Amino acid sequence: MPELKYAPPLKYDVVGIGNAIVDILAQAEDDFLRREDIHKGSMTLIDAARAADLFDKMGPTTTVSGGSAANTVAGIAGLGGTAAYIGRVHDDQLGKGFAHDMKALKIHYPTKAATTGAPTACCIIMVTPDGQRSMNTFLGASTDFSVGDVDEDTIASSQITYLEGYLFDKPPAQEAFYLAVKLAHKHGRKVALSLSDGFCVDRHRAEFHALLKQGVDILFANEVEAMALYEKNNLEEVLPLIADACPLTIITRGEKGAYILNGERTFTVHAEPVAKVVDTTGAGDGYAAGFLYGLTHNHALPDCGRIASICAAEVISHLGPRPQTNLQKLVESKMGGAFSKAS
Amino acid sequence: MPELKYAPPLKYDVVGIGNAIVDILAQAEDDFLRREDIHKGSMTLIDAARAADLFDKMGPTTTVSGGSAANTVAGIAGLGGTAAYIGRVHDDQLGKGFAHDMKALKIHYPTKAATTGAPTACCIIMVTPDGQRSMNTFLGASTDFSVGDVDEDTIASSQITYLEGYLFDKPPAQEAFYLAVKLAHKHGRKVALSLSDGFCVDRHRAEFHALLKQGVDILFANEVEAMALYEKNNLEEVLPLIADACPLTIITRGEKGAYILNGERTFTVHAEPVAKVVDTTGAGDGYAAGFLYGLTHNHALPDCGRIASICAAEVISHLGPRPQTNLQKLVESKMGGAFSKAS
Repeated sequence: MPELKYAPPLKYDVVGIGNAIVDILAQAEDDFLRREDIHKGSMTLIDAARAADLFDKMGPTTTVSGGSAANTVAGIAGLGGTAAYIGRVHDDQLGKGFAHDMKALKIHYPTKAATTGAPTACCIIMVTPDGQRSMNTFLGASTDFSVGDVDEDTIASSQITYLEGYLFDKPPAQEAFYLAVKLAHKHGRKVALSLSDGFCVDRHRAEFHALLKQGVDILFANEVEAMALYEKNNLEEVLPLIADACPLTIITRGEKGAYILNGERTFTVHAEPVAKVVDTTGAGDGYAAGFLYGLTHNHALPDCGRIASICAAEVISHLGPRPQTNLQKLVESKMGGAFSKAS
Repeated sequence: MPELKYAPPLKYDVVGIGNAIVDILAQAEDDFLRREDIHKGSMTLIDAARAADLFDKMGPTTTVSGGSAANTVAGIAGLGGTAAYIGRVHDDQLGKGFAHDMKALKIHYPTKAATTGAPTACCIIMVTPDGQRSMNTFLGASTDFSVGDVDEDTIASSQITYLEGYLFDKPPAQEAFYLAVKLAHKHGRKVALSLSDGFCVDRHRAEFHALLKQGVDILFANEVEAMALYEKNNLEEVLPLIADACPLTIITRGEKGAYILNGERTFTVHAEPVAKVVDTTGAGDGYAAGFLYGLTHNHALPDCGRIASICAAEVISHLGPRPQTNLQKLVESKMGGAFSKAS
C-alpha cells in the first residue's frame, strides 16, 4: 500500500479495526452448554460445520450486527461521536446487513465487501438465564483480513485507532495490527487495544506483550484478561505491572465497576445499576465506546468511566451487543451538564 | 386436496395460519415516519422497491422471525403448549431462519418452503421512542398462500385453528381461510380469528362479517379493529353487536386491559404493568398466545385473560415480537398454583 504523502485532517474520533461479524443469538439453558461442551462466558473459534450444527440445535434466533470493535464504534456513533470502521465481510446477505448498519450509523466504512472466498463471519451466541453470553465464532471472510485492508487515510484521520484482541487469532491479521499501530503513530494519533478474551490472551500472550512494547496508548481489559496477560491469579499483583506497560489502562470488573490506571493515579469507577442483566454480549464493547467517546471529547478520566458504565449498563439490559436506546439522551439524562458541556 | 378418511388424534393445542414473515426492526424518530409517510401504529403493504428503499433509509436493524399467527404459536410453545403452523416462506436465508425458529420451538410446520417465485416475506418495522411500532410489509412468498397449503391433517389434529386477519389481503388466501374454517369444524375443532389491524378491517369488512357468520368461535380484536368492523366511533355500541356475532370475543385495550365477552357475561381484565414499553410489536399476538393457551388448558376465562396480559407485557418489554423469556416460568412466578394446577 503506497504511503500517504499528505497529512489528512482529523475527521473521526475513533476508527475501530476488527472482525466484522454478524451475531446470531438465542437463549439457552446451562445444560445445553454442558451438552455442547461450550465454555461459558468465553469466545471459542469454530469451523463452518460446527456453526451449521450449533445453528441447527440452538433456540429461536435474533440476528444483529456484532463484532467487538464494530460494536464499540456503533456506541460512539450513538453517543454523537464520529467513527470509522475497518473490517472484512463478504458481499452476501449477512454482509449487506452489517454494511447497512454501519451506513445507518453514519460510520465511515471503507473496507470493500469480498466477492470471493468465505461467507461473512457469524458468531453463534448462547445467552443463559443468568444473562451470561457464550460465543462461538466462525470467522469466515474475516479470516482473510490483512495489511491490504488497513486504510491509512482513515487511520490518519482518526484521533484513536481501536484494535480488538480477537483480530490476533489469524497471522495475516497480526501483521495488519502492527501496520495499523505504526500508521496511527506516524500521523501522531493514539492507539487503543482491547484484550477481548482470556483464552485469546492465553493464545497470543507474547504477541500482546510485544504490541504493548511497540506502544499502545490505551488498554482495555477485564480482570480475567489482565490476570491472563501476566499469568497471575491475583489482580492486585497485576495492577502495577499493567500500569507500567501502558500509560492508560482500564480494568473492567463487571458489577464491581472498573479501575482506571493512569501512571501514578488510580481511579475507581462504580458500575451503573441495571434492573435485570438480560445479555452481557457487548458489555465490554459498550464500555470502551463510552470511555473513548469521553476521552475524545475532553472529559476527565472519572467522567469517561461514568459514561462508559452507563453505556455498558444499556447494552446488558437487552438482547444483543449494540445500544438500542438513544445513548446521547440516556447519558445526558444521567450526567446532565457534566456530559453535554464538555462534549 | 383429497379429504381425510380418518379422524386424526388431537396433537396440538393450536395451529396458526398466517403470513410467514421475518421482521426487520429499527428505532426511528417520529420525524422519520412523517417524512416517509408511514402511518404510525398500522400495517401498510409495500412492494419490493419500497422495501428496498425503506431498508436503505432505516436505522441499525434487528432481524427476528415474526408473522402475527406465527408469533402467537411461538408464545403457546413458550408456555409449554403444543402448536403447529401453516404459512409460506421461500427457501432463502430469511425463510431458513423462519423455519429454524419453528423447529427450535418444536412447532409442527408442514408447509414446504417454495423454491420458485418471490422471496420470503419481510416486515420493515419502525419503533418510535414511545415504543409504538409501525409496520411495512412486503408479502413476498406469502402472496401465493392458497388452498393447497391448508393441511387438513394438522387442522384436524389441533384443538383450535387460529387465523390472522392479515391473510385476507390476498384473494387466494381468502379461499384458504374459508377452507380452514370448514375443515376445523368438520373435525369438531374450534376456529379463532384475529382482526389484525384497523385498516385491514376497512379493506375486508364484508369478508370478515361473512366469516363470522360462517362460524368463528373465538374472536380477538383491539378497540380500533372492533369499532372498524361495525364502522362505529364508540366501543360501548360495538360490544353488544360483537358479542352477538361470536360466542367468545376478546377486546384488547392496551394499557387499559381487555374485555372478555362470552354470551351474557363480560369480564374485565387488567393489563399487566410494564416498567418500560420498549416495542409494542407482537403485543396482540402475545396476548392471543396466552389466552389460547389458557383456553386449551382448562383455565377459567378471567385466568385466560391474566395469562394473556402477562405474555403481552413480556413481549412489549423488549425489541421484537416474540417472547425472550421463559414464559412458562414467568407466568408461574406471577400466578403460582392458579397457573400450574390447571395446566
